Amino acid sequence: MTDIAFYEAFKEESETLARLLPSNVSPFFTWQTIQESGHKLPPAPIISVRTQSEIPLDWADRLSAIITRSTGYDHILDYQQKTGWRVPSAYLPDYAARAVAEHAIMLCQALSRGLLLQLDSFRTFHRDGLSGREMRGRRIAVIGVGRIGSQIVEIASGLGMIPCGVDLNPREDLARRFGLRYMPLEDALALAEIAVCALPLTKLTRGLLALKKLSLMQEGSIFVNVGRGEISPSEDILSLVSEGRFLGVGLDVFDSEKELASVLRDGKNPSEFAPHIQKSVEASIGLMRTKNVILTPHNAFNTEESVERKSADTVGNLLSFIKTGNFISPILRNLEI
Amino acid sequence: MTDIAFYEAFKEESETLARLLPSNVSPFFTWQTIQESGHKLPPAPIISVRTQSEIPLDWADRLSAIITRSTGYDHILDYQQKTGWRVPSAYLPDYAARAVAEHAIMLCQALSRGLLLQLDSFRTFHRDGLSGREMRGRRIAVIGVGRIGSQIVEIASGLGMIPCGVDLNPREDLARRFGLRYMPLEDALALAEIAVCALPLTKLTRGLLALKKLSLMQEGSIFVNVGRGEISPSEDILSLVSEGRFLGVGLDVFDSEKELASVLRDGKNPSEFAPHIQKSVEASIGLMRTKNVILTPHNAFNTEESVERKSADTVGNLLSFIKTGNFISPILRNLEI
Repeated sequence: MTDIAFYEAFKEESETLARLLPSNVSPFFTWQTIQESGHKLPPAPIISVRTQSEIPLDWADRLSAIITRSTGYDHILDYQQKTGWRVPSAYLPDYAARAVAEHAIMLCQALSRGLLLQLDSFRTFHRDGLSGREMRGRRIAVIGVGRIGSQIVEIASGLGMIPCGVDLNPREDLARRFGLRYMPLEDALALAEIAVCALPLTKLTRGLLALKKLSLMQEGSIFVNVGRGEISPSEDILSLVSEGRFLGVGLDVFDSEKELASVLRDGKNPSEFAPHIQKSVEASIGLMRTKNVILTPHNAFNTEESVERKSADTVGNLLSFIKTGNFISPILRNLEI
Repeated sequence: MTDIAFYEAFKEESETLARLLPSNVSPFFTWQTIQESGHKLPPAPIISVRTQSEIPLDWADRLSAIITRSTGYDHILDYQQKTGWRVPSAYLPDYAARAVAEHAIMLCQALSRGLLLQLDSFRTFHRDGLSGREMRGRRIAVIGVGRIGSQIVEIASGLGMIPCGVDLNPREDLARRFGLRYMPLEDALALAEIAVCALPLTKLTRGLLALKKLSLMQEGSIFVNVGRGEISPSEDILSLVSEGRFLGVGLDVFDSEKELASVLRDGKNPSEFAPHIQKSVEASIGLMRTKNVILTPHNAFNTEESVERKSADTVGNLLSFIKTGNFISPILRNLEI
């Protein structure tokens, strides 16, 4: 009998999980989401997903536990609310913060220097229009100074940047160590040459960086989102990109990301979705075709180090649950925000 | 009367220079080289060139000074040797160091995270084989810890990397501030997960990182060259890349760079060159077609900030010379190497 089914597990992850699982636990692995797998019933009492699987509501009666191998857990909260909190669930609060922070800074640097344009220009060895910007001395707004954001501040400070932070809970230690100045969102956006969103998705943050707020950013500024796409819809970003607001945009996350993935991965036609989702998917694809926009496939978390940490944290939660009935990092009702 | 004639000055540069010059200095600007200008006599006692003007030998008697607006000064050394060191001259040693250091780190990050592969994978929203590496905790060898290298050490340290340095003149302050460990070249190459060449081209460094030394690097390591291509020939790099030695390679400089540019820019056929140059050019083009190799067109220096500093350093040298008869950064006989 299969003990746990891992959905959305790419090759390196399956291999690492298989290596770390004890021999008395029998796993099933697939890179597919639940809906892509076509499974009508859960293939094991415990399932593990990332963020794109839609867990059927009627599975709630048949599941003994759910582990999301992600730091975001809004999709599980949603499932729990719809099914009445019947299935114990867990998430991974800390495995990828460093990887995401470094990815965000890499995007900022690549956009500041027009790396994609440089690569194109190499083919003709021309340098016209290739003057980039240095990071040193530039103002960076870090929106969401939590596990990820605080490391963005640290790295930015090492690059000689001037960091400002937006967060409900300012940390005095970061202010002292890195000269981080906390300020209201509107002020940070207006001041920054580079803004990085490292927020989790909550009721408060959904749509927080939509058109109205993003419009506060300076002409020629850079916007990077490594938080969640729903905080800053692709349509709004594309609209500002189209009017030339940004020097560059870097996105690792997308609203309607699940649908975007099914279009890009499985060739699904955007017109099959509801109109507002179709628009959002088409905006992301429009951004993909735009100069000095760097899009990565929700991959900021993905380093050798974090894959190892992620698998270790997943197996740790699983074994704890099997042994004690409790997760190390459970998703609880008080996480609802 | 004109005080100084600026040759090879493009629009943006002329404007910046004009803005920075005091009103009592009368400048002449042209985008042309001296030979393109057709000038038979110097239009001013002081001239400023970049690297492509051929200064007539008989101007030596009429010139009071020469400023080359470049970090390289081999063309001025050549002129001085031919004319007997009669004209005080200056160069700009430091205007681009920060830009080059940041470019080097950007290449290291993009290679560590397989950024090009991530961009490709976005088109199918797949993540197989996309696990990158974090910078934190990795060993970086900085070969040549001068103006550029010392800033690479500083940024790498801010990223939590472990820096080791190779240089004839170890700096105690860098060792203290950033935990930089100096060591022999061979040891640094064998130890490093990432090696960055930031050396100038001299008789000592030409060919220093050829096949024999590069072969000391670990399997799966990263090599970046922002110094000079002649230090590490493309043929040798391609040979190691072909046998799978490197996780990634980033080059901003190339041996036979002039010929490579004429092939890429003007469509010249590599077979028109001498056999050893043809091989070198073809190796660079071979690298361009190789996975996780990032090539930029000798553009590391090129930021808004460095363009501004270049003009400021030029004006600083000029005013110092006018006031004291001495340049801030003179080209002296002891620079001959």
